[in-house]
Amino acid sequence: MNEPKPLNVFDYEHMARQILQPATWDYISAGADDEVTLTRNRSSFERIGIRPKCLVDVTWIDTSTTVLGHPIAAPILIAPTGQHAFVSAEAEIATATAASAANTILVASTSSSRTIEEIAGAVASPTWFQLYLFLDRDRSEAMVRRAEASGCRAIVLTVDSPRWGRKERSLRTEDDLPWRNGNLQSLPPGKGEYPDGAPATWADVDWLRKLTDLPIVIKGLLTAEDAALAADHGVQAVIVSNHGGRQLDGAVASIDALPEVIAAVDGKLEVYLDSGIRRGTDVLKSLALGARAVLIGRPVLWGLAVNGSKGVIEILRMLQNELAWAMALSGRPSIRSIDQTVVRSP
Amino acid sequence: MNEPKPLNVFDYEHMARQILQPATWDYISAGADDEVTLTRNRSSFERIGIRPKCLVDVTWIDTSTTVLGHPIAAPILIAPTGQHAFVSAEAEIATATAASAANTILVASTSSSRTIEEIAGAVASPTWFQLYLFLDRDRSEAMVRRAEASGCRAIVLTVDSPRWGRKERSLRTEDDLPWRNGNLQSLPPGKGEYPDGAPATWADVDWLRKLTDLPIVIKGLLTAEDAALAADHGVQAVIVSNHGGRQLDGAVASIDALPEVIAAVDGKLEVYLDSGIRRGTDVLKSLALGARAVLIGRPVLWGLAVNGSKGVIEILRMLQNELAWAMALSGRPSIRSIDQTVVRSP
Amino acid sequence: MNEPKPLNVFDYEHMARQILQPATWDYISAGADDEVTLTRNRSSFERIGIRPKCLVDVTWIDTSTTVLGHPIAAPILIAPTGQHAFVSAEAEIATATAASAANTILVASTSSSRTIEEIAGAVASPTWFQLYLFLDRDRSEAMVRRAEASGCRAIVLTVDSPRWGRKERSLRTEDDLPWRNGNLQSLPPGKGEYPDGAPATWADVDWLRKLTDLPIVIKGLLTAEDAALAADHGVQAVIVSNHGGRQLDGAVASIDALPEVIAAVDGKLEVYLDSGIRRGTDVLKSLALGARAVLIGRPVLWGLAVNGSKGVIEILRMLQNELAWAMALSGRPSIRSIDQTVVRSP
Amino acid sequence: MNEPKPLNVFDYEHMARQILQPATWDYISAGADDEVTLTRNRSSFERIGIRPKCLVDVTWIDTSTTVLGHPIAAPILIAPTGQHAFVSAEAEIATATAASAANTILVASTSSSRTIEEIAGAVASPTWFQLYLFLDRDRSEAMVRRAEASGCRAIVLTVDSPRWGRKERSLRTEDDLPWRNGNLQSLPPGKGEYPDGAPATWADVDWLRKLTDLPIVIKGLLTAEDAALAADHGVQAVIVSNHGGRQLDGAVASIDALPEVIAAVDGKLEVYLDSGIRRGTDVLKSLALGARAVLIGRPVLWGLAVNGSKGVIEILRMLQNELAWAMALSGRPSIRSIDQTVVRSP
Repeated sequence: MNEPKPLNVFDYEHMARQILQPATWDYISAGADDEVTLTRNRSSFERIGIRPKCLVDVTWIDTSTTVLGHPIAAPILIAPTGQHAFVSAEAEIATATAASAANTILVASTSSSRTIEEIAGAVASPTWFQLYLFLDRDRSEAMVRRAEASGCRAIVLTVDSPRWGRKERSLRTEDDLPWRNGNLQSLPPGKGEYPDGAPATWADVDWLRKLTDLPIVIKGLLTAEDAALAADHGVQAVIVSNHGGRQLDGAVASIDALPEVIAAVDGKLEVYLDSGIRRGTDVLKSLALGARAVLIGRPVLWGLAVNGSKGVIEILRMLQNELAWAMALSGRPSIRSIDQTVVRSP
Repeated sequence: MNEPKPLNVFDYEHMARQILQPATWDYISAGADDEVTLTRNRSSFERIGIRPKCLVDVTWIDTSTTVLGHPIAAPILIAPTGQHAFVSAEAEIATATAASAANTILVASTSSSRTIEEIAGAVASPTWFQLYLFLDRDRSEAMVRRAEASGCRAIVLTVDSPRWGRKERSLRTEDDLPWRNGNLQSLPPGKGEYPDGAPATWADVDWLRKLTDLPIVIKGLLTAEDAALAADHGVQAVIVSNHGGRQLDGAVASIDALPEVIAAVDGKLEVYLDSGIRRGTDVLKSLALGARAVLIGRPVLWGLAVNGSKGVIEILRMLQNELAWAMALSGRPSIRSIDQTVVRSP
Repeated sequence: MNEPKPLNVFDYEHMARQILQPATWDYISAGADDEVTLTRNRSSFERIGIRPKCLVDVTWIDTSTTVLGHPIAAPILIAPTGQHAFVSAEAEIATATAASAANTILVASTSSSRTIEEIAGAVASPTWFQLYLFLDRDRSEAMVRRAEASGCRAIVLTVDSPRWGRKERSLRTEDDLPWRNGNLQSLPPGKGEYPDGAPATWADVDWLRKLTDLPIVIKGLLTAEDAALAADHGVQAVIVSNHGGRQLDGAVASIDALPEVIAAVDGKLEVYLDSGIRRGTDVLKSLALGARAVLIGRPVLWGLAVNGSKGVIEILRMLQNELAWAMALSGRPSIRSIDQTVVRSP
Repeated sequence: MNEPKPLNVFDYEHMARQILQPATWDYISAGADDEVTLTRNRSSFERIGIRPKCLVDVTWIDTSTTVLGHPIAAPILIAPTGQHAFVSAEAEIATATAASAANTILVASTSSSRTIEEIAGAVASPTWFQLYLFLDRDRSEAMVRRAEASGCRAIVLTVDSPRWGRKERSLRTEDDLPWRNGNLQSLPPGKGEYPDGAPATWADVDWLRKLTDLPIVIKGLLTAEDAALAADHGVQAVIVSNHGGRQLDGAVASIDALPEVIAAVDGKLEVYLDSGIRRGTDVLKSLALGARAVLIGRPVLWGLAVNGSKGVIEILRMLQNELAWAMALSGRPSIRSIDQTVVRSP
């Protein structure tokens, strides 16, 4: 093809927009309401200044790290996003294959187009399962059991969605979307779809904690108070996230919330971050402010739309490469050498 | 019709602009002078970051509260705005009907197209009367007596308009406006129209305080000093307001003035806020910073222009719904659970 | 004519631009270099929030004040600007007539198109003379003597122009300008034009102080240090000014420099301000931060270009009216009631 | 020609863009990644406010100073940039000639189109040699020896480029660029091109320190920590630089990093600055914040492209002139009179 070679994830965004149906594009790209938080997710990263360290030996850059003890090639996981069949026929199978190829972890969504059995079964590498609670506990438990049986290595409980955020740009066009939820097919009948009428509480976390021996990750908190509670309730990790600006418009940027969360957990939990990561330098800034890893959502869908599994691998490869570049240029050759002196205090 | 369904008050703004005569549009939309305060009213809200609380039971969201002891469905009142006949033949009758249907309160303006008797008489629910003082005390008193006789439940004294702000955009086109003031028809003859030559002072507040047993609300203050004076002069509530940016250009945004007012009144008065409310999250932010309720002005006129009483109801319904959504997504299921931890200290 | 009535000084700016030759327009409107300070002069005013006081008796607004003991109708003087013949055949005669009609003071520029004798002689009201020093002391002294003989009531020594700022936008077109300096015609021959090669120093201020009994005003300082020196050197007043952004690009805005100057002079001198005043609220903000009066430059030229003396009067009338409006709406009915509580501390 | 006379370096930028091939333009103008740092390099300068001092004798402005003991006409050096043959057939010979004519210093790049022997030999005035280390120490040493033998007066070790920054705008078009590196022709064969696989460390600085008696300048640090290390390792000067925004996108602006570097070196080293200098006032601000001199990169290439050696001289002349103007207008007639009171503390 004559297309210029994409150089970064924004190029993939551009290509995906050319390819996708408008309703699909709107669904993926929209933020809640006026998209103030969506915009802030980028501007907050761009405001941070990096303080490079020079004359460090950066011959070898090692981006590898671990999350919950699992080694990964770079601190960049695939965030749970639903309905991959909207953008690719192979759907989450392609995404899982890419995660495996890139030696990272896919957090498979409850809202996947394919079942967790298909997704986790497609690869030997670890998959985590993102859980939305159902009104009916039996259905929730059934879903957790299926995740366990499929070999998932952690349960990621999303806690920012007691209601779906109003992605108005998408609301105007969503009638054309071909929704299909793989996981719901084989669940026992129950009283309700998630998550209407079934907002989770910390009691549900306790219930889940007793239900499974898998590590539990709380996804979607943004405050020190909630982070401290997470530690008290025996979970293993938290994801600082505003759901890519898709839930509560006006919510603080994840990267702005990160310092208070880090201070609150005081090393007791692993802390990850998503919402707005588009560059290797964003990963560097996140790690500098205390995150152990980040997750990417929309970029994965762009890669998947453009070139299926290969597109996702390319997205992961580009971000890992950019992170390595940023580590070299900032004089931090290993993940553990990244500390708060990397960024300028505001 | 094939028009897409409006999703928010900005959609109504857009529709109203299509419908209204330019002079009417300018009159409603204009701010004073360079519209610096008009713009600031939005930007100050957008700068505030929300700190959502997760894993709270938000199965039931209760937006109800009270103002001056009157129960209302949501902390969103209808601000006094004049000349509803500019946008709808039914004028304030439609607005009052909508307020009643939405279980909230209309603050009927002295400058209404219809008389206070017609407006308050149209509905069983409580109406408050907004008062501009006349140079002639007899006329002022007569107006208060009519409000009392009509069953109004509070007098809202506007104090930011000893002169009309220069809404220059409207000054350029206002000759085409069909002014008609219902209330003035049946008043005793007097020395002047309001409020030229008759700026109110705290002595007038004392006079009004003695004149009526109705609760008095001071509308249009923006400072701690004035809020403290209001408490000293025995009023029941204040409305922090810059008159929608229509009076003194350069005045601080209401939301920026709110903290000092809250600190000054120290719980002795109810504090409401208007000027710039367009989203449920704006209501949430206002309540987080200490307001008991907010008032909306232009959005009501947009709803009225587009679809009469039904349009106003829809505006109120949308904002209440957005507020409920924001309460659910921020983990504050009741009005009293909304405190200052909802917003990020700057 | 069918033109809409101008409502503010920006309308005059627009009209002047239609009328004037491009070279003249560029000369008047340009700022130095990249016009960073020119832009800052407006943005700094717009950032300041006003804290209105309500329920004050503002029936009578009194904008009158004094400068150096001279009563004026409003704290708005006419700044020295040169070459009024560029925009009006009557040149400074029209400007002086307008100043007199508006009961304010014209600061006549050394660079006037007409002589100081013509200008000061045209009106009974006081004129101040703006002085640029010549390399040749005799010429400078001659100029001061002429100002004295013409009845000028103060000498305003401009100190920000040891070189002319590079107004690049104007440099590109200035060849078309019909320069003519009235005052230079009748001066004794000397070694140089002002102010090349003859930058003034504090010693020159001392020399000037001994030379004349007229009050001396230092125009063009922006720091506490220089304000303190001014007080030490026995002058009567200072004008905080960046020369309308026409001298040193990057210089702080006058309104941002004002607080440190006020603190430094500690009441020993009168302090005025220019650079960026376009609205009555700008005057209010300047007085709130400690200025006794402001001066306007470009707006006078716009008025002069559009309608000669009447245009200047209209500019002064509009600004006085806007100031009165702002005083009424902020609850400060007299100049002396304007204090620092009018503005929000940053 | 009928072209208007260029008034500033931006005019040269405009002219160069008309002349150069797109690939060359992109190569010169691009910043890394999203060009956040490139943009910040200008915005950070523009945010700084200057505090002019008035009534200082500025009859004689002296911009001369010294760097490492070498007298120069103004504190403006020519930064090392590579491949001058991209824009002018005479390449670095023209640049060196201009530096000599302007009585300043060219820092000749390792990546020059011509050899260091040609460049340094073309002029009697001092040349400094910018060094990139090779993987092979012998090649590095050979390069230093050639610089010494050519009469270079200092070695400028660039430390911000263990990898090349990804200038994506240029990556899209760089295939058309006619690379040719003069210096590499005659080097002994070795294991690698610079600087892949051969990131320098402080040990290399020590090695270099022992290798040569020439003063060593560390170019490309941005932090207090690294500045302190530089002092410890016996170098003579540092250049605070983000490589014109071409290396690590997100890096702090040099001018924002300068204060902490100045504090850290505590007078032990000379400190220079580059990245974003486009105006004489930028030089003034840099000196006010503690730099001894600045370096310019892209403007030199614009001058070279437009008019060869004469164009570079004109660039240097314009900036020196602007600096003199800024010194006069800020009341700092000599370089040593420029101190931190020139700028407003933020």
